[in-house]
Amino acid sequence: MIDPARYPRLSRIDSPADLRQFDEAELPAVADELRTYLIESVGRSGGHFGAGLGVVELTVALHWLYETPADQLVWDVGHQTYPHKILTGRRDRIHTVKQKGGVAPFPKREESEYDTFGVGHSSTSISAALGMAIAARLKGGGQDDAAPPKVVAVIGDGAMTAGMAYEALNHAGGMDPEPDLLVVLNDNRMSISEAVGGLTKMLGRMSGSATFNKLREGGKKLLGDKNKRPARFVRRWEEHWKGMFVPSTLFEQMGFHYTGPIDGHDLPALLGALKTLKTLKGPQLLHVITTKGKGYDLAEGDQIGYHAVGPFDPAKGLVAKSGAKKPTYTDVFGDWLCDAAAAEPRLLGITPAMREGSGLVRFSKEYPDRYFDVAIAEQHAVTLAAGMATQGAKPVVAIYSTFLQRGYDQLVHDVATQKLDVLFAIDRGGVVGPDGATHAGNLDLSYLRCVPNMVVMAPADEDECRRMLSTGLRHEGPAAVRYPRGTGPGVAVEATLDTLPVGKAQLRRSGGPLALLAFGATVAAAEQAGAELGLTVVNMRFVKPLDRTLLLELARNHEGFVTVEDNVVAGGAGSAVSELLDAEGVLLPMLHLGLPDAFQHHASREDLLAEAGIDAAGIQAAVLHRWPRLALIDSDLPRAAGA
Amino acid sequence: MIDPARYPRLSRIDSPADLRQFDEAELPAVADELRTYLIESVGRSGGHFGAGLGVVELTVALHWLYETPADQLVWDVGHQTYPHKILTGRRDRIHTVKQKGGVAPFPKREESEYDTFGVGHSSTSISAALGMAIAARLKGGGQDDAAPPKVVAVIGDGAMTAGMAYEALNHAGGMDPEPDLLVVLNDNRMSISEAVGGLTKMLGRMSGSATFNKLREGGKKLLGDKNKRPARFVRRWEEHWKGMFVPSTLFEQMGFHYTGPIDGHDLPALLGALKTLKTLKGPQLLHVITTKGKGYDLAEGDQIGYHAVGPFDPAKGLVAKSGAKKPTYTDVFGDWLCDAAAAEPRLLGITPAMREGSGLVRFSKEYPDRYFDVAIAEQHAVTLAAGMATQGAKPVVAIYSTFLQRGYDQLVHDVATQKLDVLFAIDRGGVVGPDGATHAGNLDLSYLRCVPNMVVMAPADEDECRRMLSTGLRHEGPAAVRYPRGTGPGVAVEATLDTLPVGKAQLRRSGGPLALLAFGATVAAAEQAGAELGLTVVNMRFVKPLDRTLLLELARNHEGFVTVEDNVVAGGAGSAVSELLDAEGVLLPMLHLGLPDAFQHHASREDLLAEAGIDAAGIQAAVLHRWPRLALIDSDLPRAAGA
Repeated sequence: MIDPARYPRLSRIDSPADLRQFDEAELPAVADELRTYLIESVGRSGGHFGAGLGVVELTVALHWLYETPADQLVWDVGHQTYPHKILTGRRDRIHTVKQKGGVAPFPKREESEYDTFGVGHSSTSISAALGMAIAARLKGGGQDDAAPPKVVAVIGDGAMTAGMAYEALNHAGGMDPEPDLLVVLNDNRMSISEAVGGLTKMLGRMSGSATFNKLREGGKKLLGDKNKRPARFVRRWEEHWKGMFVPSTLFEQMGFHYTGPIDGHDLPALLGALKTLKTLKGPQLLHVITTKGKGYDLAEGDQIGYHAVGPFDPAKGLVAKSGAKKPTYTDVFGDWLCDAAAAEPRLLGITPAMREGSGLVRFSKEYPDRYFDVAIAEQHAVTLAAGMATQGAKPVVAIYSTFLQRGYDQLVHDVATQKLDVLFAIDRGGVVGPDGATHAGNLDLSYLRCVPNMVVMAPADEDECRRMLSTGLRHEGPAAVRYPRGTGPGVAVEATLDTLPVGKAQLRRSGGPLALLAFGATVAAAEQAGAELGLTVVNMRFVKPLDRTLLLELARNHEGFVTVEDNVVAGGAGSAVSELLDAEGVLLPMLHLGLPDAFQHHASREDLLAEAGIDAAGIQAAVLHRWPRLALIDSDLPRAAGA
Repeated sequence: MIDPARYPRLSRIDSPADLRQFDEAELPAVADELRTYLIESVGRSGGHFGAGLGVVELTVALHWLYETPADQLVWDVGHQTYPHKILTGRRDRIHTVKQKGGVAPFPKREESEYDTFGVGHSSTSISAALGMAIAARLKGGGQDDAAPPKVVAVIGDGAMTAGMAYEALNHAGGMDPEPDLLVVLNDNRMSISEAVGGLTKMLGRMSGSATFNKLREGGKKLLGDKNKRPARFVRRWEEHWKGMFVPSTLFEQMGFHYTGPIDGHDLPALLGALKTLKTLKGPQLLHVITTKGKGYDLAEGDQIGYHAVGPFDPAKGLVAKSGAKKPTYTDVFGDWLCDAAAAEPRLLGITPAMREGSGLVRFSKEYPDRYFDVAIAEQHAVTLAAGMATQGAKPVVAIYSTFLQRGYDQLVHDVATQKLDVLFAIDRGGVVGPDGATHAGNLDLSYLRCVPNMVVMAPADEDECRRMLSTGLRHEGPAAVRYPRGTGPGVAVEATLDTLPVGKAQLRRSGGPLALLAFGATVAAAEQAGAELGLTVVNMRFVKPLDRTLLLELARNHEGFVTVEDNVVAGGAGSAVSELLDAEGVLLPMLHLGLPDAFQHHASREDLLAEAGIDAAGIQAAVLHRWPRLALIDSDLPRAAGA
């Protein structure tokens, strides 16, 4: 529970209605308490850190000024919503963030009526908010007394680089009648990696204009207290004359009325601007400048390091863990990329704004001219790679499974139809865990294996991951290696660029009436279960093409197959095995183990794998449930007619 | 063969090298011949019409000035490439466009070395061209004598509304070192429907600026012949001073150097601008204004009607077909949408720039305030719908199957995870035909059925399509109705808004040892085959959820299942049936018929269905191939152990 002595104001805020009881003059003190509380609680729990610190004042201002939850606040990405969660009834549970049963790391409609739209992937907020504004206006059409709710989207400059944000701006700005919508551009010069692109340069020019800033400073000095009428006039005058010195913005060209830039940590200035904007009709854009990690010096100085953190002591900050740790799959990829680049001058590396997350930091330093961070732009990343491949280059697109969903059409239409030589290094495939359903990679084997011309691989361990990456790079045509978040079984990685034979599985152990056919991250668990039960275990390696020869051979001398994968069963790797046997006219009892036909809640990866029954114990239990006699006598299974 | 008397110049052009033999002064005459030839040949064959007429001069200018195929021209969408195809060796075959074995309707790498990048979906060209420019520069790094090829992307204003075009501009404009890349913005104020959005307004302001146009006219009068040096100076002066009168453009803000707007039908002006741009480094944007259908009055006057045409007599133009024709599925959807809107005031209709193609013309007129054309912006379309649904609206997203691939992440992340009440009316599901692989809807059942919370339907006929749309609208949560291009079996459509029970299949006929389980457009053919062979036939209706009760019952009294669908077999509806039986421990021989694991070439829909073996004859043949004794004695089939 919160200590009322240390947090005299925040301890009284159980909902935004409580916040609105405070006088405007007290709000800076509320914001200070909120910031301190946030640092303490994320220090205890870990979680997304810097983004929330950057929007403390904005969160206070919006909930104080707008009638939430009737008015709709849409927070883009959701990394930034911890302060929002603290003010909207989740203060005392915020330290449970990302834990199983705890507060979700992103807005979640099921969790709170203040969470108007679930997010996780970036750049959806303007589309969602516009949809809300339109629907609310049409609904309000009949009842004139009930004014439609106000709708506000808060989006970062990084998120603004994605095409869908532009699509939404274009639609909103061109609509007739004009939609009533406020977009707050939270400009902190950062996405998760360093922000890149023409837009970033433009924003830099806008807020860095020396003439404009001098004017602004002059105005401030001249008129003192911002809440008095003359200062307000000066701000309007500023807005007007700014146009003479700051180039007209992209936003104005798209049909938005632009206000800004203003200091997002200056609560009186923020409130002043927002009060005016709340009275205006039509599409409005407010440009605020904030500092990621604001108020915690260590985070301000290392914005990437403090983007998302594990538990730490706020007094000491992040401490590098000592001792050699097991490399993650991301590390394995990052090292392979550098080694492969040394051997293959045609290799180019592409990331949609995930340099750190995808393990490209070393590559970006060692091969800066072959490294391409395209901003949050998955569609472009994939087609850029396709264009490169037409010239004989060997592009590698490093991407999270969940984000590849944004480049799906480009993978199909630009890469696969043309059999272009693009390698997809898909991180965070399968169960991801604490980030919840929006970040899960549970669908990729299904949506990839239906695409003609694709080769789809899933490694059982770290060394195999490296060999598969080499295999995909050498393969002429589109290929994907899909590996999980975090560490694997801990197999030592050889410094080789050797490849694996395409479409060949690996028999791990032989024996017993059943064969466990395991894909990727589930191989270790399947091997353990197979050893317990005395069954054949295969590391399938290739989801597409399957090892037809081995499967038919195993079908002849086994009485059933159990497929195991960390993908949904629906259309997954196991169903590919069924399709193959069906096509060959082989009749064999089959059990498909995999992820459920449901979105999994946030929890640890281990918990979710166990819940889905694809850890060693779960596999063993499922096999025994289906073939109960296996526990008694191995050979007493019903024999299939076609086997 | 081309008549040299009528086409003295064009008949001598078998490749761009031949074109480059002509003197610059003769190029307008070449363009005139090309235009006439194009009108004649598309009149004979049908095909995309207006877009090509709009870029005749541009095509001539680019191939004359650039060293194709060494230099890389990337044509966005590809509707506009008929003139390009005529100049690059396909003149005498252009009348075979869209036919089986004929010229492809879009650029195709396999077809010609001049077709640098296959397209079909819009807005990919800048990404692809940037990839080419980067790879070419890096490749040229070692050999200083070989200058890298020039790269030019030609993109329409409609295509520029898509997010991925913006992502590519943002990346290219922010790169260091700057990429050498020319983007030609072919601004004809049209996408396929009327262009919408803030960008369109901006382009209108730019090229409509009265002050600027007066300046331009003044300059022209003053100095006469454009090819003389003084006129060139005037053009540069124009470019410079334009900035004083025309607002700085979005393109300049994104880091491009902007030239224009210029008249895209004025060959000397075009060549003048392109010659200068060819010598410049860095990212360049040339804005040309063209008229879709230019040179054919009827097409200029009806740009939407002449976007893509069947064969017609150029002297007479398009003639409305007389007599009542069978309604297409698109018509059925369009009528349903209006009727449903009358009964359900919460219904809203959304299209990503496909008002005509998706059958929304009547709805857009009858319900203008509930109709939303969001431009070519599939990502935004889907999340906009999600936002609307949070406010209790009932959004219907009308979209082609192939284009829904662009909104896949939004369907998963914004709609399905939140179980929002969005109905996807998916046109052109399955085999599409003459537009080729880029427009095929062969994957949708696979990529949809793996998504949790989705209801996925496929109608067997027109009346059922209407009932499914009502079912999806009434269903609380995400639902998709996926129907094919063109007409169906011709079942009369009742003017009802009745729904179907979710997850219930329809037994069409009973008898024999096998059950044919048919999905959607294949039901009629399966029924025919089943009648011939005396077998059970089921109209499955629901891909998700399957009718478990009926399937288990049928499994008990049949000796095998044959699934039939117009989707790839990989992860498709048939594999869902296998998964269900596997999960239930039911062992039954199964044959999956569907589309191949390959991209199908362009041909008629009927040809492609027959090739895939899912017409009535193909189904019958496949069943008899698997169960040859069925031809002799019905009951003499091997009996499965588990059945």
